[in-house]
Amino acid sequence: MTGRVSLVGAGCGEADLITLRGLERLKSCDAVVYDALIDLRLLEAAPADAQRIPVGKRAGEVSASQEEINALLISLAAEGKAVVRLKGGDPFVFGRGGEEAMALAAAGIPYEVVPGISSALYIPMEAGIPVTHRAVSRSVHIVTAHTAHRALPEHLPELAALEGTLVFLMGLHALDDLAAALMAAGKAPSTPAAVLSGGNAPQPAAVRGTLETIAQRAKKAGVIAPAVIVVGDVAAMDLRDQARGVTVGLTGTDPFQEKLGDQLARVGLRAAAVQRARLRMREIDIPWPELGRGGWIVFTSGNGVRAFFRRCLREGVDLRALAANRFAVIGTETG
Amino acid sequence: MTGRVSLVGAGCGEADLITLRGLERLKSCDAVVYDALIDLRLLEAAPADAQRIPVGKRAGEVSASQEEINALLISLAAEGKAVVRLKGGDPFVFGRGGEEAMALAAAGIPYEVVPGISSALYIPMEAGIPVTHRAVSRSVHIVTAHTAHRALPEHLPELAALEGTLVFLMGLHALDDLAAALMAAGKAPSTPAAVLSGGNAPQPAAVRGTLETIAQRAKKAGVIAPAVIVVGDVAAMDLRDQARGVTVGLTGTDPFQEKLGDQLARVGLRAAAVQRARLRMREIDIPWPELGRGGWIVFTSGNGVRAFFRRCLREGVDLRALAANRFAVIGTETG
Repeated sequence: MTGRVSLVGAGCGEADLITLRGLERLKSCDAVVYDALIDLRLLEAAPADAQRIPVGKRAGEVSASQEEINALLISLAAEGKAVVRLKGGDPFVFGRGGEEAMALAAAGIPYEVVPGISSALYIPMEAGIPVTHRAVSRSVHIVTAHTAHRALPEHLPELAALEGTLVFLMGLHALDDLAAALMAAGKAPSTPAAVLSGGNAPQPAAVRGTLETIAQRAKKAGVIAPAVIVVGDVAAMDLRDQARGVTVGLTGTDPFQEKLGDQLARVGLRAAAVQRARLRMREIDIPWPELGRGGWIVFTSGNGVRAFFRRCLREGVDLRALAANRFAVIGTETG
Repeated sequence: MTGRVSLVGAGCGEADLITLRGLERLKSCDAVVYDALIDLRLLEAAPADAQRIPVGKRAGEVSASQEEINALLISLAAEGKAVVRLKGGDPFVFGRGGEEAMALAAAGIPYEVVPGISSALYIPMEAGIPVTHRAVSRSVHIVTAHTAHRALPEHLPELAALEGTLVFLMGLHALDDLAAALMAAGKAPSTPAAVLSGGNAPQPAAVRGTLETIAQRAKKAGVIAPAVIVVGDVAAMDLRDQARGVTVGLTGTDPFQEKLGDQLARVGLRAAAVQRARLRMREIDIPWPELGRGGWIVFTSGNGVRAFFRRCLREGVDLRALAANRFAVIGTETG
């Protein structure tokens, strides 16, 4: 039986920005053929025995590799496998998904396309920039600046005349030329501009300025590709919550960090392990005479409970001496 | 304690095109404030006791309703609730998410924005149109044609000069003017165009033509809003798998339909219940003398197994008469 191929957009940013449909396809596949720019944690969703084949394509490679990828997809499906072709962003937004779909169709391989969150829209969002905003931008123009033959996108004069948001992908290498050309075409030098590489990039960057200043600022900040260039009034906006965009360094045991990290993520904060600790139980000082007089003993953590009773055992304390005491705890685990 | 608001893009099309992050927020919320155009099955993901508040905003309503929505979000969060603001598509692509974010920020309410699949990109994909395609379209321009004051988007001459894909949202009411204006600005009358309302729309439509013919064809087909208008060479492409885009009508019992529907979805077909059946067990004719001579008895379904033994019981057959027979089944459930 012939297999099938799902061209799945992995989305942009972190692993949980994939769609449910994309995740379902991953969970039930026999092979994943994946790009360099995806969140690799997504691969954990595929069955343990599924093949995992990196085809890390980056800007600048020769087009032969696309043909190799097409051939690989066809041969895996011809073996009867359910194949997921996991692509960064969205397969049809500069993802070359159209080419893969055509190759599969020509080979008679069943396929589908599952959309993903495009970096053109999400990288600005992550920086607090809405690509459209009432009374500010009524259109968004997504343009790739990367071509084999040209240094700059076509139709810059027309793009310069638009009032909407311009989003350039893969244009960092020509940022100064791009900004100069837009200004030469009549775009005001004071037009806000931003260069963003995304919070999940190897070296995250969010540089802001104007058409006049952005190239120099990006150079000074040492932004590396891939990066998204946003030009237009929205590029001056920052709608991130003030508490957002903040990374919280965690210390403590692994289970504690994981639990707190999940909770922080739920309220929108990013967590990073600063220091991993193995729990070393400190001796605690117990005021026995005080305790003997009764009253409440309040534990604030499971570790406190363990330290207390360990000390009691070591000292040979008769726990019946605590008969006059009452106990309270904070948290179900402590209880 | 102050609550928080997640502005979540529900995506476009079916419920499984939401992101994992969006789904997680839904699962743990106290209230959902949702738009008219979302897949209502998403509401099932929220806890049973969560408030579900429709604010069905459609094009043409007065802007006061946006202020009411802002006030509603603020008051729910002020009650300490975790609020999900579930919006069709993506909050920052003509979703007015920016306005809600600003209102929340001004009120001191913590918030986050979770992206979604935009209809501007997905509705074309669903019709087999890649908004970008190598050597065909190197840019995509998303423009809203809906404004309070103007019948047509601004900058049509510049848009007409671009070679990339033009995607107009909310422009169906002015389609003939739009097409005429693009042609008047120099866009070739033979430029491919499509009007698409999406497979999940109340009345799905995918009309193709050229700038010259599209308005009349859409009118003839009776397309109703909301619809997406795609103009450019990619509008002539159809990269859907041939077997895709097909809806399979299912008959049979509910569990059977659900099971088969899931399997069809996995290979990319849409399933719709044509007729729901309650199982009525037909009497089956058992050739007892033949059976007594031994050989294989093959069951092809669980229902066959039930019917066979029910008949045996009713007829008082001594099952030891089948000692010479061997049994085979097709399918684990039948076994």
